[in-house]
Formats: sequence, structure tokens, C-alpha cells
Amino acid sequence: MPDPSHAQPHPAAPPERRPGGRTARIRAHVLDAVRAELGAHGYEGLTMEGVAARAGVHRATVYRRWQDTGGLLADLLDAAGQDDWQPPNTGSLHEDLTALNDEIQQSLLAQPSIAQALIAASFRSARAAHAQQQLWEDRYQRCEILVERAIQRGELPHHTDARRLLIAATAPLYHQLVLMHTPPDPHLPTHAATTATLAASAGAFNHPPPNPNP
Amino acid sequence: MPDPSHAQPHPAAPPERRPGGRTARIRAHVLDAVRAELGAHGYEGLTMEGVAARAGVHRATVYRRWQDTGGLLADLLDAAGQDDWQPPNTGSLHEDLTALNDEIQQSLLAQPSIAQALIAASFRSARAAHAQQQLWEDRYQRCEILVERAIQRGELPHHTDARRLLIAATAPLYHQLVLMHTPPDPHLPTHAATTATLAASAGAFNHPPPNPNP
Repeated sequence: MPDPSHAQPHPAAPPERRPGGRTARIRAHVLDAVRAELGAHGYEGLTMEGVAARAGVHRATVYRRWQDTGGLLADLLDAAGQDDWQPPNTGSLHEDLTALNDEIQQSLLAQPSIAQALIAASFRSARAAHAQQQLWEDRYQRCEILVERAIQRGELPHHTDARRLLIAATAPLYHQLVLMHTPPDPHLPTHAATTATLAASAGAFNHPPPNPNP
Repeated sequence: MPDPSHAQPHPAAPPERRPGGRTARIRAHVLDAVRAELGAHGYEGLTMEGVAARAGVHRATVYRRWQDTGGLLADLLDAAGQDDWQPPNTGSLHEDLTALNDEIQQSLLAQPSIAQALIAASFRSARAAHAQQQLWEDRYQRCEILVERAIQRGELPHHTDARRLLIAATAPLYHQLVLMHTPPDPHLPTHAATTATLAASAGAFNHPPPNPNP
């Protein structure tokens, strides 16, 4: 799901102590350094040492406060929002899902992609895994309204399972761009949206789903 | 896609030198040790040192031959086949896809899961990434016949894009079990198969796909 990392950098979230003080300044420098290091070396080259050196902050401080590179990436997401992201609202389910997938594809193909880095980090950092799970839960929850609106417009059967529909619509992007590393395909967002929309119209996400071999 | 790691261990592949000699014995011991270490500590606890110690082989030998834990996992897959895996052939597309997804779900939920370990490793090891990509390519290619048979039976429109259908059918399993870590859902294999089957019948994987907002 779209992550907030493409938003214009907000002012750093309220620091734990002394507003605008040393704690907040260190955080801002360190997170700037994370972005810059990702841009320069990619996720594989992101190290606590590199971030500390670029930020001009003692290594021990970075370890104490963020633990590992997953912790840095999780905090980068946190800092990007005051999160007011809202799902697309185009008036059609298919267009909404396509727009959503466009955003996801953009965030996964960005150079550097904070979204890709956080997913990679989630395999070795509990902090990154937790941040990633919270982000997905939040995004899928916010997107449920997109299915509710389609039901209200009469585009979908009542009792459509919004979560299953949203996962079906978005999963091919993660599978191809994060796991399989297939070359970027400009049609992928639309194709995945079409698949989910047609399946939804045929009742695939009903409780219970229809028998596809009548 | 199902990996060959659940197959009964084949005899180790032909060693580079001296059939049945020292090279083959070392490989067999090391790969046994990889399985055992994964079972004992999971992927996060898999180290070159732990494998070398358990196999009774010098650390330098393990590094020289396999480079990193991704290299060990890639070789574990190689050793499992002489790969004669064939996709399900039940006589119905929906049943075939369900059976395929059952296999994938099993391989991702196995304790330990070589499939999960290889995916995790692919984010930090070029060898693992390459092995994973080859495995997926091979499996999706072998599965294309499953779509061709459905077309021949008249279940699907001609010109159905087999690869897109197969990815739509399987992607939700990887998204939920590998990336989102949602709790295992026994209905997931069937649900994902139903979605893809209904979408396919509605022409979602045709060239070109139909307009879902007629």
C-alpha cells in the first residue's frame, strides 16, 4: 500500500524532550542521512555506521535510539506522517483500484524506494516488521471505504469482503515488483485492478463465494 | 510456487570431482546441517558458522564453496531435484489452482520453510535471489499447461494470458503469508483460486482485457 514516504517532509514529529532542541535536531539529521544513504547506496548499502557518519552523530547514539536499520526506516515512515493519506475517490471501483495500484507501483519503483527498503528490512528487523504490518493494516483499513462506496453505487454485491478484494487487487504488484523482480510493466496497475473488479462483479468476494464450476 | 524442498532427499547431484568422494560427502553433510539449523533456529539464526560446526566442516570451506547463507539455500534447492515436479491435473481449472495453492501454502507454512528462508535470503544474497527467480520462472512455465488444458476444455476464452492468470491466482498467498504475515487461513488457497477462475471466465486475462465499466 502507498507509504507516506513520498510526501513532502513534514517538520519532524514532536521530540521526546525540549521542543526544537537537540533531540529533534539529531532525529532530523539522522533521518535526512537515511534518505541520502538509501539514495546513494540502496538498501543493501544502508548501515548504522554510514548513517551516523553522514549525520555527524555518534554511532552509539544511533544504535541506542534506533537499534538497527529497520528501526531507522520505521522512524522515517513515522516522521513522514501526521498521516492524512486518503484512498482515491474517482466514482468507479475500477478507476479507484487502478489509481491505488498506480500509487503502489510508484512507491515500489521509486529510486530509492523507502517502501522496498522497509519490506527488505522486515525480514531481519522486528521493528521494521512491526512498522510494515501497521502500515499495511492502516492502509487496507482506510481503503475499505472504496469498496463500500462501490456497493452503495450498486457496482458490487452486498456482503462483498472488502479486505479480500483489496488484497486480490494489490497482491500482484507486490508479488511481481518486490518478490519476483519482473521488469516494470506500465499495464500492471490496470490489469490487477481489472482482475479484482471482474472477480468482484462475479461474486468472488461474497460470503460465501459462489461455485466457479456450476 | 511449490519448491522441491519437500521432496525426499535425492542422492546428492554429481560432485564436481571424484564421484561419491570427499566433495560429495562434504556437500551432503553441509546440506543436512542447513536443514537441521533451519529447523533449530529458523532463517534468522542460520549462519555459516553454525552450519560449518554442525557439519563438522571447516568454516573456510563453507565460505569458499557457498559464499553466504543464500548460497547454501540455493544449493539445497538444487540438490532436492532432478526436478520432476508437475502441476496438478484434476480436470478443472478451479481444482487445479486450488491444489497448486495448497502446495504453495504448505511450503510457506512448513516448519522450517525452505521456501520462506530462500525468499528472505533473496533480499541480501545475489545467489539466493537468482535461485528464487529461476525457481519461480520454472514453476510458472510448467503451470502454463494447466491454463492451456482449461482452454481446450472450453472453460476459458482463447488468448487467455496464462502467466497473468497464474500470478493472480498465487500472488495473494505470497502477499499474506510472506509479506503481511497474516495468520494462516485454510480458505486462502480456495479463495485465491476462485478469484482467478471467475476473473478468467469474465475475460480478465484476455488480450486485450475487457472494459470492466461497460
